[in-house]
Amino acid sequence: MKCKRCSEKAAIKLRSHNAAFCKTCFLFVFERNVERSIARDEMFTYDDRILVAVSGGKDSLALWDVLHRLGYTTEGLYLGLGIGTYSKASQLRTEEFAQQRGLHLRMVHLEEEDDGVTVPDAAQFTRRAPCAACGTVKRHHFDRAADEGGFTVLATGHNLDDEAARLLGNVLHWQIPYLAKQQPVLEPTHARFVRKVRPLYRTSELESATYAFLRGIKYIVEECPNSRGASQILYKEILNQLENEMPGTKLTFLTDFLKHGRAAFAAQPGGQLGECERCGMPAMAEICGYCRLVAEVDRRRSQAMAHA
Amino acid sequence: MKCKRCSEKAAIKLRSHNAAFCKTCFLFVFERNVERSIARDEMFTYDDRILVAVSGGKDSLALWDVLHRLGYTTEGLYLGLGIGTYSKASQLRTEEFAQQRGLHLRMVHLEEEDDGVTVPDAAQFTRRAPCAACGTVKRHHFDRAADEGGFTVLATGHNLDDEAARLLGNVLHWQIPYLAKQQPVLEPTHARFVRKVRPLYRTSELESATYAFLRGIKYIVEECPNSRGASQILYKEILNQLENEMPGTKLTFLTDFLKHGRAAFAAQPGGQLGECERCGMPAMAEICGYCRLVAEVDRRRSQAMAHA
Repeated sequence: MKCKRCSEKAAIKLRSHNAAFCKTCFLFVFERNVERSIARDEMFTYDDRILVAVSGGKDSLALWDVLHRLGYTTEGLYLGLGIGTYSKASQLRTEEFAQQRGLHLRMVHLEEEDDGVTVPDAAQFTRRAPCAACGTVKRHHFDRAADEGGFTVLATGHNLDDEAARLLGNVLHWQIPYLAKQQPVLEPTHARFVRKVRPLYRTSELESATYAFLRGIKYIVEECPNSRGASQILYKEILNQLENEMPGTKLTFLTDFLKHGRAAFAAQPGGQLGECERCGMPAMAEICGYCRLVAEVDRRRSQAMAHA
Repeated sequence: MKCKRCSEKAAIKLRSHNAAFCKTCFLFVFERNVERSIARDEMFTYDDRILVAVSGGKDSLALWDVLHRLGYTTEGLYLGLGIGTYSKASQLRTEEFAQQRGLHLRMVHLEEEDDGVTVPDAAQFTRRAPCAACGTVKRHHFDRAADEGGFTVLATGHNLDDEAARLLGNVLHWQIPYLAKQQPVLEPTHARFVRKVRPLYRTSELESATYAFLRGIKYIVEECPNSRGASQILYKEILNQLENEMPGTKLTFLTDFLKHGRAAFAAQPGGQLGECERCGMPAMAEICGYCRLVAEVDRRRSQAMAHA
């Protein structure tokens, strides 16, 4: 099999693109595809200060690597979620990556924060599923770090598989408000929010893993231990089966949604955001979702201690 | 395991309902569920004359059986599609069913009609997939028979699995006009059309198969030979996997769509229907889709004969 671009011997076959590439051309094509997504959706320019949320996994490190190579102004943000050895290993990978490139990495450790609550604590002391609690915790700290650091854009490593699985989940339950909001660029709805972008939304999990491997990026291969049995994993498997039978399904599903489907779910009138009385970040109610979670953990933890 | 209704020994377990039933109670519950769908969606009353499209399969015969038992005024319509031994066997099952119950069965044989075109001919002489051609052919003859026979309602045996698979296909490709129209009751858009209803849309394939079996209805078990490899089959498999992991998924997917999703796809302005110049049935263009299909088959067949 030959490389589609240079006709040298191919190293990687991408069924979804019906094409194969040599190593050099794959890296070129991957970077170009990310660049095209950034341009197509007007995600950011060279004037922006971009905070890249990095977990130590293939997607976020591949994203940071590409943005750095393309010459954008970036810093990394690592959130220590307190998920045992998984968190420790992912932090190591992230620090190593930043050091090797001389990039600035911001660290937030939930167990050290005044109002911090780790994901295991949130799951243990409330009735939330770990992934739901983790979503609330991440959103809050991403927003806060972007605001406090004076960034103009927050970039995350969500890939095509993530986005298609999320879309399938939203569609299976007809979550209209979530469907109305699912897009690769979210404009800020409050002065203390920044624009949120997902530059990898058109490239697959396989592509970012291949990119990271070919660039010699050491990333944490294990999935988060909390994700076992999560419905997101099932949706990804289902979409992989469809992709296998009909290559291109994932990309069409997502991009046709963005082109034709999303507009149908007229965005809900969002309501005016105020400020959380506790942390000062934008909130729909007097207390934001994150601070409600923290308060609930504190209350239940005290109760548990009193009974112990 | 005990029957949920009468506590006798259960014969059938339905995971999607998280319940088991004895034979008598299963038959009762199935009929009651069909009745409830008819009432909930105001499909028809005892004053209506209902034409039931029957294929000889489990769903359409189960439907006709239930409607007959509930005392509705029904006649059957069997379309001979000309699909070899499959069509012959399905016709036999249908005739047997009607005879045993003294019900009136209308027959239309495509190879005997003046403007008839069989599904194999349509597939051979045009570039349409057999299932697409079959859809056009069926719609035309169902509409015509209901109109000519003076019926007020046309009922088909589409079950929950059919409807959920169709919805998944429409969603994967974001077919907005199809999504806008997918509902269990379609009101007529022209004086020569009748209301179309799908009373089994909330009961699964497994339920109608069980009902037909317990009632001793002999139905054709084979799937249509054209359906092999059809994407509809893949979508059903996918939904069965989801159902297996999360019982109730199919019903929620479909009913939440009908409750919350469909309205978002504002029905396309339909345009005024005129009459087909060839067959006189309602049509968007001068010639209806069915007559265009027939003309295409005639033209290509003549060309093929001239070259032979």
